[in-house]
Amino acid sequence: MEHLGRHVIIELWGCGEMINDAGLVESAMRSAVQAANATLLDIFVHEFSPQGVTGVAVLAESHLSIHTWPEYGYVAADVFTCGSTTKPDAAAEVLRKAFEATTADVRELERGVMPPSAEKNHHRELVNA
Amino acid sequence: MEHLGRHVIIELWGCGEMINDAGLVESAMRSAVQAANATLLDIFVHEFSPQGVTGVAVLAESHLSIHTWPEYGYVAADVFTCGSTTKPDAAAEVLRKAFEATTADVRELERGVMPPSAEKNHHRELVNA
Repeated sequence: MEHLGRHVIIELWGCGEMINDAGLVESAMRSAVQAANATLLDIFVHEFSPQGVTGVAVLAESHLSIHTWPEYGYVAADVFTCGSTTKPDAAAEVLRKAFEATTADVRELERGVMPPSAEKNHHRELVNA
Repeated sequence: MEHLGRHVIIELWGCGEMINDAGLVESAMRSAVQAANATLLDIFVHEFSPQGVTGVAVLAESHLSIHTWPEYGYVAADVFTCGSTTKPDAAAEVLRKAFEATTADVRELERGVMPPSAEKNHHRELVNA
């Protein structure tokens, strides 16, 4: 089956205190984007009060997002990429190390799955088959 | 099982030409955020050449993202929310209608799943159990 994108869902537990620091989260995100061989278009990082950080990186190849719960040592991240030259799983590994997670659950969803024969304007029949 | 967030993964096929228009995509995203009862912190929309749009909305409750492939009539979206008052599934329905999708596949992932007894600093043992 062909697919248009790869969506890597990342659960990190046992993370360190750096997940409550917007600057460090942004730095990890930039490293992850680079490791994924992706192109950063824009990045947005928000530090919540009293705790928690949300970061979203817009990529030429889709996006990377991070949401942190420092009170649980937990980070929810996802990396969505398209194209054959990107490595979203490499981004996941960078985040795991950067946040010193003791437990990581990484799974990949294929997005935009279609049969090899799928062509423009034929998708309606194909996906309903 | 308790969980910290809801992550709704949305596959839309058979979408109309509006998915190649950054303005219309942004408008649909804003309506979806409102339907989800979420708070918009920032929004970024990029129109690719020759086609395709990427939009990311940063929410106080996490994020909403959209990536479109007009050549296939396909939209990949996801809505991640935390808190008990948000309705990410309502956002999915708004997007389906806005893009006039003929086929929609919507599935929900529980993010940050932990047992009811999970407490601060206890997560390491719990998630490894």
